Amino acid sequence: MKTKGILIVVSGFSGAGKGTLMKKLVEDYEGYSLSISATTRSPRPGEENGREYFFLTKEEFEKRIADNALIEHAQYCGNYYGTPRDYVEEQMTLGHDVILEIEIQGALAIKKQYPDAVLLFVAPPSAAELRRRLMGRGTETAEVIDKRLRRAAEEAQGIEEYDYLLINDDLETCVKELHAIIDAAHHAPVRNEEFIEKIRQELGGN
Amino acid sequence: MKTKGILIVVSGFSGAGKGTLMKKLVEDYEGYSLSISATTRSPRPGEENGREYFFLTKEEFEKRIADNALIEHAQYCGNYYGTPRDYVEEQMTLGHDVILEIEIQGALAIKKQYPDAVLLFVAPPSAAELRRRLMGRGTETAEVIDKRLRRAAEEAQGIEEYDYLLINDDLETCVKELHAIIDAAHHAPVRNEEFIEKIRQELGGN
Repeated sequence: MKTKGILIVVSGFSGAGKGTLMKKLVEDYEGYSLSISATTRSPRPGEENGREYFFLTKEEFEKRIADNALIEHAQYCGNYYGTPRDYVEEQMTLGHDVILEIEIQGALAIKKQYPDAVLLFVAPPSAAELRRRLMGRGTETAEVIDKRLRRAAEEAQGIEEYDYLLINDDLETCVKELHAIIDAAHHAPVRNEEFIEKIRQELGGN
Repeated sequence: MKTKGILIVVSGFSGAGKGTLMKKLVEDYEGYSLSISATTRSPRPGEENGREYFFLTKEEFEKRIADNALIEHAQYCGNYYGTPRDYVEEQMTLGHDVILEIEIQGALAIKKQYPDAVLLFVAPPSAAELRRRLMGRGTETAEVIDKRLRRAAEEAQGIEEYDYLLINDDLETCVKELHAIIDAAHHAPVRNEEFIEKIRQELGGN
């Protein structure tokens, strides 16, 4: 029995592999939709409007805030970032599970509006591994890496706010676990109201 | 990473196939322990003490109640039934998931004492199918079947108290879903405190 779509929020340390994990989930399994954020930052070379982000002017973004057209939004390095409400709700109505990546404040803001959202925190197997991955990128200075690790220490304080903790050691295993967790969430009574109502009526008839 | 054992409580309509499902789960997967109830009813032919039930005298049972040695207990048709605490806690400490079958009052009593217990409700795909299964047993009178269906109508009122609803249409599928749900539950932060503490300490050292 097909149930309502689930809103899945993924947070985790920079370098935990959230992006790759979500991309693989959408590739490997059907029924998932990746939410696309809106931002006022300029597109980077190769980025396309509506693919990486919806690129908006400051005025357009602020109008969306005023219209309550964003589920959540935040400012970062002088630019706005936010989650458009219409896409998320449309996909969920179609029975798709919508997955989005966001930091903890945004995740908690979403949980307030969508109490049935499933919040996942992705962590690397150890801090040493996290440092290795950040250094392996080869694009970050030692200073930036240290800043990310300090930020990770802060973020680690919020793990208990999440419904699930995923340890991303091996990508293949982790994507299977992610899918299994979402699959399990479809079995919550709140997502099977139609079936419950049906069997209650049938049994009432006896 | 191995996490603490989970206490899994299974309820559901008589005829939903709970017993077969649990037996198959324990057969097909490792790491599960089936809780054995204590009772004051007499053993039936072929039943063994410590296998189907722990058979106790009324005095022995009442002493266990007084000693708080039962997680929950109830009276049914003039006999006591209850769940021994020592076995459940022992198995969970060993990292085993303990599974037990019980009706809703018992399930809620357990959730109060073990808030992290996972409560599952097993339902047949429809009331018609439930009736078919009850009649298929060939051992019940029409009167008993009607009584069971009326009882099912009552029990259906409590489904929302459970964490998960499992629809037992095909046994093979259902046992896989049951295992997947329990597997997902191992990813709750509350069951990964050791890992969270470890990575916090590691990150704090940066």
